[in-house]
Amino acid sequence: MEVKIKNFSHTTADGMVNMVSILKKQPSLRTASAYGEVYLNRETFLLLRKNALKKGDVLTIAKIAGIQAAKKTSALIPLCHNILISKIDISIKLNIKKSLVEITSYAETNAATGIEMEALTAVSVAALTVYDMCKAISKNITISNISLLSKTGGKSGNYNKINK
Amino acid sequence: MEVKIKNFSHTTADGMVNMVSILKKQPSLRTASAYGEVYLNRETFLLLRKNALKKGDVLTIAKIAGIQAAKKTSALIPLCHNILISKIDISIKLNIKKSLVEITSYAETNAATGIEMEALTAVSVAALTVYDMCKAISKNITISNISLLSKTGGKSGNYNKINK
Amino acid sequence: MEVKIKNFSHTTADGMVNMVSILKKQPSLRTASAYGEVYLNRETFLLLRKNALKKGDVLTIAKIAGIQAAKKTSALIPLCHNILISKIDISIKLNIKKSLVEITSYAETNAATGIEMEALTAVSVAALTVYDMCKAISKNITISNISLLSKTGGKSGNYNKINK
Amino acid sequence: MEVKIKNFSHTTADGMVNMVSILKKQPSLRTASAYGEVYLNRETFLLLRKNALKKGDVLTIAKIAGIQAAKKTSALIPLCHNILISKIDISIKLNIKKSLVEITSYAETNAATGIEMEALTAVSVAALTVYDMCKAISKNITISNISLLSKTGGKSGNYNKINK
Amino acid sequence: MEVKIKNFSHTTADGMVNMVSILKKQPSLRTASAYGEVYLNRETFLLLRKNALKKGDVLTIAKIAGIQAAKKTSALIPLCHNILISKIDISIKLNIKKSLVEITSYAETNAATGIEMEALTAVSVAALTVYDMCKAISKNITISNISLLSKTGGKSGNYNKINK
Amino acid sequence: MEVKIKNFSHTTADGMVNMVSILKKQPSLRTASAYGEVYLNRETFLLLRKNALKKGDVLTIAKIAGIQAAKKTSALIPLCHNILISKIDISIKLNIKKSLVEITSYAETNAATGIEMEALTAVSVAALTVYDMCKAISKNITISNISLLSKTGGKSGNYNKINK
Repeated sequence: MEVKIKNFSHTTADGMVNMVSILKKQPSLRTASAYGEVYLNRETFLLLRKNALKKGDVLTIAKIAGIQAAKKTSALIPLCHNILISKIDISIKLNIKKSLVEITSYAETNAATGIEMEALTAVSVAALTVYDMCKAISKNITISNISLLSKTGGKSGNYNKINK
Repeated sequence: MEVKIKNFSHTTADGMVNMVSILKKQPSLRTASAYGEVYLNRETFLLLRKNALKKGDVLTIAKIAGIQAAKKTSALIPLCHNILISKIDISIKLNIKKSLVEITSYAETNAATGIEMEALTAVSVAALTVYDMCKAISKNITISNISLLSKTGGKSGNYNKINK
Repeated sequence: MEVKIKNFSHTTADGMVNMVSILKKQPSLRTASAYGEVYLNRETFLLLRKNALKKGDVLTIAKIAGIQAAKKTSALIPLCHNILISKIDISIKLNIKKSLVEITSYAETNAATGIEMEALTAVSVAALTVYDMCKAISKNITISNISLLSKTGGKSGNYNKINK
Repeated sequence: MEVKIKNFSHTTADGMVNMVSILKKQPSLRTASAYGEVYLNRETFLLLRKNALKKGDVLTIAKIAGIQAAKKTSALIPLCHNILISKIDISIKLNIKKSLVEITSYAETNAATGIEMEALTAVSVAALTVYDMCKAISKNITISNISLLSKTGGKSGNYNKINK
Repeated sequence: MEVKIKNFSHTTADGMVNMVSILKKQPSLRTASAYGEVYLNRETFLLLRKNALKKGDVLTIAKIAGIQAAKKTSALIPLCHNILISKIDISIKLNIKKSLVEITSYAETNAATGIEMEALTAVSVAALTVYDMCKAISKNITISNISLLSKTGGKSGNYNKINK
Repeated sequence: MEVKIKNFSHTTADGMVNMVSILKKQPSLRTASAYGEVYLNRETFLLLRKNALKKGDVLTIAKIAGIQAAKKTSALIPLCHNILISKIDISIKLNIKKSLVEITSYAETNAATGIEMEALTAVSVAALTVYDMCKAISKNITISNISLLSKTGGKSGNYNKINK
């Protein structure tokens, strides 16, 4: 049963947007992992796979774009705190059966707030970069299933997505 | 039947990443519209709707974040050209039946290259901002169906997604 | 009587600009609050008030712009240190008698240097955003009285402006 | 008598924020000049003047900060279009009688929209930088009278502030 | 014989820094190519070469960093105008005899001012990224010979470096 | 004799780029100093020296550009961690005999990773700014000898370049 006191942390009692204060919170170790998919049509997917096997540049550029974007999270999401990122990594796999690109990010920090938004931003921008690389072939591309896989640390504790 | 000359515009013949030259292309009017969804659980959705009805701040902040992000597209996506944006707008609707937030962006430019990536970046960052506003309630949030709805102008002509 | 040893902290003995070293200073809790005003003519003010009462978007966008700008302070002010902001908030009130917009910011950090410039930058950019929203009606707009209301923490201790 | 059709260019008919489309507007030559003041107490002013006479660094850094900020205007003010700046300059004078720093900016563009916000942003950030340089001496500093001195070009024509 | 009227374009007659006005200049096609070298000790060079042959990631990341930096040139160099970049590319070669990394950039624009600083910034940041990748092996690394190889277009005409 | 286990800290065992985790490292005091040179032809050098003696603006602007760039290091170098900079300073000397500009940076941090890249980035961008100020006189300019002079702190200990 849901407890009634739950509310948006970023809004005040009267519904106005508001950044949460983390002044009194001690820094602690936190991690987050996020996931997202880019659906391509078969033709585009096979070209991407060919490049990935041969040169790898297309996936490397998406990975670097995601890493760089994670560091810009607080500039992109208005109420995000700026934090020191201890590590941000992205791995990209090609799912041959489904013609899709699977992007997973992993982020670490020793901060007074969580690093979920950095992990999600990294995945989103890596996915947009895959899109950008592939859009000349076909516009029939969809980015889906961007979600949090897991997090550790912080007051709300650990989280693991069920049925990823 | 697919023509064989199709290839990634951002890679050279030997598969290395590469920014397309737009030096010889004349600027022309171009537009793009993109779409994305944020799936919330029922509790979170109802809280968001309550805020939207009462104060609207939560959706306004997502809209502004998306507009600002569109202007940063070339800083986020490595091989995107920087262009002058003539207009970027975002509209957000709450789909009460499905407990989802529907985000649509619309972008205009008079440039030598298209504005699809700006429209898609705007939707993605607006969706991440909705996520950020709602994540204190539940981590069970998914961003999906980010795709191009339509584009006009440019050498590749107009495009309209079928079965949006 | 003024003590003679006072000097600019950002200049060396021979007058050259210089960033203060905060290497040996321990982080400590600090807050700052700043204030600024935007003077509008009556027509513009009444339109702004009408929007604020009805939709609120115009003031929300100024607030978000100020919050985002606070996070960019060290990129804007050359000798400012980059710090971790624990909270930054902006409240905007309409002074109906005087046709002016009153902007107050409040900032918190646990850092080795103060957060006054972040509070002042937030107010300045929120004021510029109000200006931008109103300038189509009349160019007769003035931003004034940007000043520090108060600060707490740090070696120089607390400060409260007299006769705000 | 004021014409009734005047409205915020950045809001739609129902009061929502909105970026103006400049897609159909041709680029044209436009300039803008803005002004602002930093009030210092006598002690701080005399120290600043001493540095200005001897080394000049303190005023040079404020000038450069203002020039750099002008280029960031569209990143700071949410509904500002990004434009190509043809020139941005700042001049800073010390008013010895009144113990104040007078900052004037001048900006040029060949664009489909005006350059007033760039001129105003330049003055604001130059003023904040003067503040930052002086704040170690006294917190009794006020930034005031930020306003548009003049503009040329564009549909709304030329403007000159009366009684600067 | 040198003509006496030559002077810094970025300073006024009395030596103050100043951004050149390009308001009256028409856009025209311009290109620039720049070059730079990173000297490594033998051990580091061989490790880099091994990675380049096997995976290529280390050189790809330097290339992308350089491309991204070119787009930030006007934010890095205070008096640079922001321009629209039509293309920016970087190629990196390993000089096995001399244990050095040779970085060449090529940039294009249709602008009212040149693109030399973008080409030079791209090379500099690509070189710094190579440095960053290699510094764990040895700090004995030197970035040298950053210079303009050639430029075309603009009032000052074409330029080709002799004895590259 | 070199130990065989040395490897790039930014690559995984299979050669893919990767940001090092600093999650478990405690912050500690670290400094770094870097150096770089800008070679000018005699005519350009004498003009620069004349400005430096008379007004100083040209060197001040390069210094400020370098300081600002240091704060952007993690946005420029893809695998650099964002850190809090305790101090960054740049000094510029004119070597009259050799017609060259000597740039030295000094950086401090209390962080879980080193500050060498910030010191090197500061020198590189200060050098590019000198280049930009001088390029109207002659394109015969070379930036060279960018290297680390010294570092203190961190697991790898102190370092001093021999034969600076």
